[in-house]
Amino acid sequence: MKNAVGRDIPEYLFAGGREVYQGKNYMDGRYMQKVAPRTRRYEKPQESKIVATLADALRQCGAKSGMTFSFHHHLRNGDYVVNMVMKAAIDELGLDNLTIAATSLGEAHDPVAEYIEQGKIVGIQTSGIRGRIGEVVSAGKLKTPAIIRSHGGRPRAIEMGEVHIDIAFIAAPTSDCVGNCRGIGGKSNCGSMGYAMMDAKCADHVVVVTDCLVDFPNMPASIEAIDVDAVVKVESIGNPKKIASAAARISQNPRDLMMAENVARIIASTPYFKEGFSFQTGVGGPSLAANLFLEKVMDERGIKMGWSIGGICGPMVELLKKGKVGKIIDVQDFDLDAVNSINQTPNHFEMSASQYANPANKGAMVNKLDFVVLAALEIDTGFNVNVLTGSDGVLRGAPGGHPDAAAGSKCCIIVTPLVRGRMATVCEHVVTVTTPGDCVDVLVTDYGIAVNPQRPDLIECLDAAGIPHVPIEALQKKAYSLVGTPDDLEWEDQVVAVLEARDGTILDVVRKIKPLKL
Amino acid sequence: MKNAVGRDIPEYLFAGGREVYQGKNYMDGRYMQKVAPRTRRYEKPQESKIVATLADALRQCGAKSGMTFSFHHHLRNGDYVVNMVMKAAIDELGLDNLTIAATSLGEAHDPVAEYIEQGKIVGIQTSGIRGRIGEVVSAGKLKTPAIIRSHGGRPRAIEMGEVHIDIAFIAAPTSDCVGNCRGIGGKSNCGSMGYAMMDAKCADHVVVVTDCLVDFPNMPASIEAIDVDAVVKVESIGNPKKIASAAARISQNPRDLMMAENVARIIASTPYFKEGFSFQTGVGGPSLAANLFLEKVMDERGIKMGWSIGGICGPMVELLKKGKVGKIIDVQDFDLDAVNSINQTPNHFEMSASQYANPANKGAMVNKLDFVVLAALEIDTGFNVNVLTGSDGVLRGAPGGHPDAAAGSKCCIIVTPLVRGRMATVCEHVVTVTTPGDCVDVLVTDYGIAVNPQRPDLIECLDAAGIPHVPIEALQKKAYSLVGTPDDLEWEDQVVAVLEARDGTILDVVRKIKPLKL
Repeated sequence: MKNAVGRDIPEYLFAGGREVYQGKNYMDGRYMQKVAPRTRRYEKPQESKIVATLADALRQCGAKSGMTFSFHHHLRNGDYVVNMVMKAAIDELGLDNLTIAATSLGEAHDPVAEYIEQGKIVGIQTSGIRGRIGEVVSAGKLKTPAIIRSHGGRPRAIEMGEVHIDIAFIAAPTSDCVGNCRGIGGKSNCGSMGYAMMDAKCADHVVVVTDCLVDFPNMPASIEAIDVDAVVKVESIGNPKKIASAAARISQNPRDLMMAENVARIIASTPYFKEGFSFQTGVGGPSLAANLFLEKVMDERGIKMGWSIGGICGPMVELLKKGKVGKIIDVQDFDLDAVNSINQTPNHFEMSASQYANPANKGAMVNKLDFVVLAALEIDTGFNVNVLTGSDGVLRGAPGGHPDAAAGSKCCIIVTPLVRGRMATVCEHVVTVTTPGDCVDVLVTDYGIAVNPQRPDLIECLDAAGIPHVPIEALQKKAYSLVGTPDDLEWEDQVVAVLEARDGTILDVVRKIKPLKL
Repeated sequence: MKNAVGRDIPEYLFAGGREVYQGKNYMDGRYMQKVAPRTRRYEKPQESKIVATLADALRQCGAKSGMTFSFHHHLRNGDYVVNMVMKAAIDELGLDNLTIAATSLGEAHDPVAEYIEQGKIVGIQTSGIRGRIGEVVSAGKLKTPAIIRSHGGRPRAIEMGEVHIDIAFIAAPTSDCVGNCRGIGGKSNCGSMGYAMMDAKCADHVVVVTDCLVDFPNMPASIEAIDVDAVVKVESIGNPKKIASAAARISQNPRDLMMAENVARIIASTPYFKEGFSFQTGVGGPSLAANLFLEKVMDERGIKMGWSIGGICGPMVELLKKGKVGKIIDVQDFDLDAVNSINQTPNHFEMSASQYANPANKGAMVNKLDFVVLAALEIDTGFNVNVLTGSDGVLRGAPGGHPDAAAGSKCCIIVTPLVRGRMATVCEHVVTVTTPGDCVDVLVTDYGIAVNPQRPDLIECLDAAGIPHVPIEALQKKAYSLVGTPDDLEWEDQVVAVLEARDGTILDVVRKIKPLKL
């Protein structure tokens, strides 16, 4: 059955009442019966929940084959915890038939690919999927299709019981002896622990893995001891050098700067650009550079940003410290400047993934956003964006908060070069739709700007400000004229990944890629 | 059937698998299937959730007869919100058959008694029950027995589905337009909103009632907008003069001071009194005075308190500011000093009722307590305490956190004068058991000290420190010799209130009192 973005979804995926994507806000106003975990009552006071090893913690939580374990990715490419836990579960306890429900998976988790090939891990639910895991899943080696969700779709799925977490593992920079966790104060600091909060509240069992035990009570706690069954002290939860980089440098590339300046001009042309406006941006080169030009137009107009959300990095913290943004609300930190600011700089706060982006709660922060500036691997003439699959059809990306911020914001701007190497970024049909075109408003490239025809109000704004723009088809044609028309990818029938829209409907599927024949 | 504190519980109350109290920690290690609310999905961004009136908010949340509405008591005796909401529901919408699930009810809610007499309100679930409500319930005018729970028992009951909240009403000193609430920044500040947090997470619908709208986002939010359906701005949510009093004065009464000094001496005699110890106290005269003497012995021994929890008042904030306590974790504020300190003074934090005292989660703060000092209306020779019913058998008290802190702490000290007026405080059998004797360790009166024989370790400590103590029966006999043996109260059969132990078993019942015949 074709869905609202024209993707053909195999009917066998509709088991359990699943629907195909019907367009933005399709679920608005419906009621949902949330689910809740089955948890152990610890009525008798415990002085400590520390156990010696991960294997002990797994046993205490009744770990068995067929279970789903959850993880969060605040340690990013430095994370050691996923691999440690899966090794203990599979190699020490001999478990199999396991599912990993992670907020993101990357190159740090290459060893997990081996367990997939062995058939020990049979399910993957994640936002990001990169490295060896992406390759083996794309090669059809995972027993069930991977389920890819946005950062807002994940808490929705957990609350609705579509993901049942048997044991949540919390990678904690600091914990006390009963499991109150924080993202700062240790040797592997990550700052916000926003993605882990929902897991801890909704899992049957919760295990904290830390490399820095601190005095009780470790407050204010991102993860609360009332949800934690066991605490395991390990030598190291991650490689600090890969957890948070030094402050991301703002691009000096003239092409990036030109695009960034256009983004700021577009923002300034809209009625949403007024005292107290709200803003989110990614950490890509032109996105970050947009901060710089935005500050300039804010100064020119004499207005300040009210608040900013998202994954946070240094330049936004700088704006906060300069008094040019009122509040930062933070679900994840991308660099040390942000890590060292959260809960320290006044008005820099932590939020959960549900507060950030869940489309099924009573109003996430993304729903109050004026502007979001986002990148893309590909964008097609229907304004559909792909941030998941490479041009070879292999899984190597992450929807992250992209579809959530795009859907919630009043003005979603995609900024991307027209071509990358020999690949057209603006194309006729993206390989995979990860953010539907009805959520995307403006495209800024180095060869011109296009506005979604669904937003005549924004077209008027750009026209009034004298900002030139063209139909998106013109940009696509220009791209093809530069690098040629891309060959169609060849797929087998097997679905290797299901891409869920943030509301739980099926937005797209990724199939097994046909081996390249030379 | 007789329970573990010797109370005869009528068998018809065992419907639904309810058990009688079996002793401390009876439920430890059992698993519970938690329940979750049925909530509306607000996928489409909303700029504001403000509605004009309480009646509008009720309609929007589908209010109908037979529902349960929840309230919290941080506005204490100054609260206007319960009365306003019930008036709108009953007088404007014409609802009946309603149940109030409040964290406490008092004289401020006398108008509710009228609705009970009219049969419009048929159920009351609360910790505190005082004033006219206590009188009409004691007179058998509520259609179903009131259910009295501790502050820890309430979140347990909500999580287990024993209380299903249809609409939670949040009395918010400040809120933004979508329902992020804080206890400070307005004209009716209450500080911590800890008791309301669980309600907002577990209710099907949530209505915020505020008298001070502030800019979005109102952070850090005690109640999160993601759980809020509607916001109503009213003229006033409460009488600030009755919400928080000026700093409670420490008693100058020599009898109180003597008891307080003995409390401090007992604390100092135990092995728990060491660097980093933890402490909770009530706000009664001798309890507060204990702070003063405790500070003195801390200074003498050169040790500091690690952390303190509970309802918080000025003297504890003073200790924090002087660096003599490391952290305060706060579920409710009793005076302006505490209100103005929470989230402002470094290391003064807010916690939810579940974090504070829920016996069914994975370890509430009370479970890590070294000492708690509590008052009593009555205590009997089995060390059972009554803080609910007056000597006339009428409901006029509140278990509050008393049973929770008593059960969780390593050393629970009850401090009370031996007699009050013509009533013996130490007696053979308390009118109602609200905290079972197996949770109470030491009794300090103005006529002597008694240690629970179940704690030979503490008897040794007192002996070693040269602190005289007597069997509790000696104190009871002394009390009777001073004021005479109390007459037995005369009861009718009708059960007007069920007193739940914190684990959900039945600890005692309160029956209708026979009219006094002269």
